[in-house]
Amino acid sequence: MIRKESTNSIVEICPIRNVVSRFGDKWSLLVLLTIDGEKIVRFNELGRMIPDISTRVLSRTLKSLEADGLIDRRVYAEVPPKVEYSLTETGKSLIPIIMELTEWAQKNMNRVLTHRSEYESAQAAL
Amino acid sequence: MIRKESTNSIVEICPIRNVVSRFGDKWSLLVLLTIDGEKIVRFNELGRMIPDISTRVLSRTLKSLEADGLIDRRVYAEVPPKVEYSLTETGKSLIPIIMELTEWAQKNMNRVLTHRSEYESAQAAL
Repeated sequence: MIRKESTNSIVEICPIRNVVSRFGDKWSLLVLLTIDGEKIVRFNELGRMIPDISTRVLSRTLKSLEADGLIDRRVYAEVPPKVEYSLTETGKSLIPIIMELTEWAQKNMNRVLTHRSEYESAQAAL
Repeated sequence: MIRKESTNSIVEICPIRNVVSRFGDKWSLLVLLTIDGEKIVRFNELGRMIPDISTRVLSRTLKSLEADGLIDRRVYAEVPPKVEYSLTETGKSLIPIIMELTEWAQKNMNRVLTHRSEYESAQAAL
């Protein structure tokens, strides 16, 4: 019986696996938040706005978001080539949820960090 | 000027890094969703409800969520020892946001997967 119930639970929550494993990493969320709304940004701008991302990781993250249809990439035939990124409608629809997650984090992060540090002290004292 | 604006953006969105790098992995979210509401669940039950998680990863995920104060772990002095997990108030407050992410995924996943498969075909044809 437990097995049946379990199968239902898994089916119900299954999409979270896809969504989180695809763009649930912190860089994807940060890049989406940084492009945001109606903005159009260039590769180097994104790199400046997220200073601790490497060019390689930024490039890979943008490619993956583009493949998923969350951002648009537009290349202008100039020398040097100009490349601009913007959110698609699908990408824009994800922003409010990321914002809620950010607000939750802002509200709860101190508590979480304090709890973790107390937990680690208690573990060390064992 | 861009630099100044960039710094502000980073400060504003900074907590997302902590929250996502700590429990933004798919297993943490799945474990939180599986424990859910007022439920109290045992280690083996969780293992059955998430059949593709290894014992080692489940154990590590639960420890990390406990350290962050998102779940409570209760050990009963029985033989064999009984261990039960439940959500803390902080943990419960995260559930609606995870549910929204899941709903977003259910609504958009087909579109995302189709877009990705078309993108990959187009890349392969280059």
